[in-house]
Amino acid sequence: MKKTFKIKASDSSSSARAGIIHTPHGPIETPAFAPVASQGTIKGLPHNLLQSLGAQLILVNSYHLFLRPGMDTLSQLGGIHSFISWQKPILSDSGGFQIYSLSPLVKVKKEGVKFTSHLDGTKIFLSPEDVIEIQVKLGSDIMMTLDHFLPFPSSKEKMKKAVELTSHWAKRSKDAFLQHYSSQLLWGISQGSVYWDLRKESIEDLLEIEFDGYALGGLGIGEPKSQLKEILEKAGSLLPEDKPRYLMGIGYINDILEAVERGIDLFDCVLPTRNARNGTLFTSKGKVVIKNLKYAQDQRPLDEECSCYTCQNFSRAYLRHLYERQEISSAILNTIHNLHFYLDIFSKIRQAIQSNLYHSLKCSIIDKKEEE
Amino acid sequence: MKKTFKIKASDSSSSARAGIIHTPHGPIETPAFAPVASQGTIKGLPHNLLQSLGAQLILVNSYHLFLRPGMDTLSQLGGIHSFISWQKPILSDSGGFQIYSLSPLVKVKKEGVKFTSHLDGTKIFLSPEDVIEIQVKLGSDIMMTLDHFLPFPSSKEKMKKAVELTSHWAKRSKDAFLQHYSSQLLWGISQGSVYWDLRKESIEDLLEIEFDGYALGGLGIGEPKSQLKEILEKAGSLLPEDKPRYLMGIGYINDILEAVERGIDLFDCVLPTRNARNGTLFTSKGKVVIKNLKYAQDQRPLDEECSCYTCQNFSRAYLRHLYERQEISSAILNTIHNLHFYLDIFSKIRQAIQSNLYHSLKCSIIDKKEEE
Repeated sequence: MKKTFKIKASDSSSSARAGIIHTPHGPIETPAFAPVASQGTIKGLPHNLLQSLGAQLILVNSYHLFLRPGMDTLSQLGGIHSFISWQKPILSDSGGFQIYSLSPLVKVKKEGVKFTSHLDGTKIFLSPEDVIEIQVKLGSDIMMTLDHFLPFPSSKEKMKKAVELTSHWAKRSKDAFLQHYSSQLLWGISQGSVYWDLRKESIEDLLEIEFDGYALGGLGIGEPKSQLKEILEKAGSLLPEDKPRYLMGIGYINDILEAVERGIDLFDCVLPTRNARNGTLFTSKGKVVIKNLKYAQDQRPLDEECSCYTCQNFSRAYLRHLYERQEISSAILNTIHNLHFYLDIFSKIRQAIQSNLYHSLKCSIIDKKEEE
Repeated sequence: MKKTFKIKASDSSSSARAGIIHTPHGPIETPAFAPVASQGTIKGLPHNLLQSLGAQLILVNSYHLFLRPGMDTLSQLGGIHSFISWQKPILSDSGGFQIYSLSPLVKVKKEGVKFTSHLDGTKIFLSPEDVIEIQVKLGSDIMMTLDHFLPFPSSKEKMKKAVELTSHWAKRSKDAFLQHYSSQLLWGISQGSVYWDLRKESIEDLLEIEFDGYALGGLGIGEPKSQLKEILEKAGSLLPEDKPRYLMGIGYINDILEAVERGIDLFDCVLPTRNARNGTLFTSKGKVVIKNLKYAQDQRPLDEECSCYTCQNFSRAYLRHLYERQEISSAILNTIHNLHFYLDIFSKIRQAIQSNLYHSLKCSIIDKKEEE
């Protein structure tokens, strides 16, 4: 199996590590954050602005792209990088999460998943092999296997079955992938919620199949923080050092910091971009809800410590005005700021790990946040 | 009276001229196009992208800014340039057009205009002096007098009264302006629709009062093109050579080309930005309505001759996808293209006049358009 991950530095007092994931479209320095571009664009940001923020990769949704514009168009246009004109790494999720959370009618069978499109009710069946096929056509750099996601809380009995099905599908995904001789990376997704015995079983099954990276799915959906940390801790010991680890969909900075400390390398979340559009902005002093009247005449930038275009040029009063007027530039300027805030923290995380200062960085950031 | 306009070149075979308007925030090379930033932002574009397109000035709406955020906030924040962080020239319209077109109840009296806010029905009275006061507080570079705008068609009798009131208000505006010793420029607006005797009377009244520039208002609202051209022709002969001329609100490229030929120096219109958001894109080969199915797999850029960021990077298929998904980046990329298209034509117009090639430029552009 090709070696696609290299550790550059490990924190001496925790399991945090800094590394590089090598992909067909270039390297990703880890720990890394993938902004979400569900439909092939970050909401509120053209690619040039995103790139100037230092984004290393983006995440696209196979489910959405499969439905529209559809695989014919995507193949015709030369795959996802060519279609959306983004030449850096792209991670495509398997669509599993969207199927279970968006479709009004889902039927999970051993062969695959049957669901109705949330757009027009069309009945669709996708096997794990189909999901590989879709992502090979997309040509994403990192592909994810189809998994069986369950909401939190789910009974142990149900979760056990979900884990078994996820492992069965993972094996079939790998087999299907091997038919393609693709240079894309295939990562497996573990399930099991916070039942450690099930999560362990899920991870071990994936390890036996062997993937280029390992994801923890089905977390960050309401389980107690203490249990999340415990799972991260134990999973960290079980997963091989030389493969990248991905905590899917988790975006609170505090959770990210805890997860990095436990050896997680990759994150994605809609939080910074969605909150930006809703006028909730992250700053080094805590959250700013920009619509609040108290900002109407506030001449200060959002965050005096921030070097982003928004903070270097505009006052809170102007940002409030744009938000209240529902101007498109409100979404743009807010998204620039929130993504800069996130990507900047990740850059600091990578530096801190390499300088063996992760613990003090974590304390300096975590103290100021009240994000939940 | 200070001299704020200088002609650099005149076309030998028409009345087209290239010049410079000097404003407190720098020069404007004419003929110029002012993108509309009603609320202090171009819809769909942050200032840095707008500047990279070569915009020389923007237009803001006194009416909207007066209502929200209001003059207290604007004064508190140091005026419009400081509030919106745009350091190039700003033209503020008087709000007249908005009052007549947006307010549900308008009462025009000799003292001024009484209207109800289109937002919450608040009753507001504004005199021409108030409108000057508002724009002095805004600190815009070019201020416009309050005028009495009527729809097309209006009876000659009504229009005669509107012209008389417009002249009366213009005089009071000038008197009020002189109290302020401001370095801002004050331009007068003529009315009279396509009744040449009334338009002539209106212009002559303004000339007697003396302004830094002269605008033709109440045009481009349904009057026959032949009559518009006739008015432009005659007004061109009446207006002094050494003052800039502004044709308000007219944005079709064909009309602009005809107007430049008849000596107009300045234009503003929502057309390129509004059409961009509606997915109607201007190209050197004619209009592209991007939602059309025929573009779903079209790999070509919008306009193969265009050097804008959108055309240099994205296919029609991707732009259609973004439009159909109602992505914010659809508005952004489309606005970049349409504004680039407009500003590029104005740049070519200025060059052509200086090279005495205006006629051939006009023919090369006008032949390809079918904009109405």
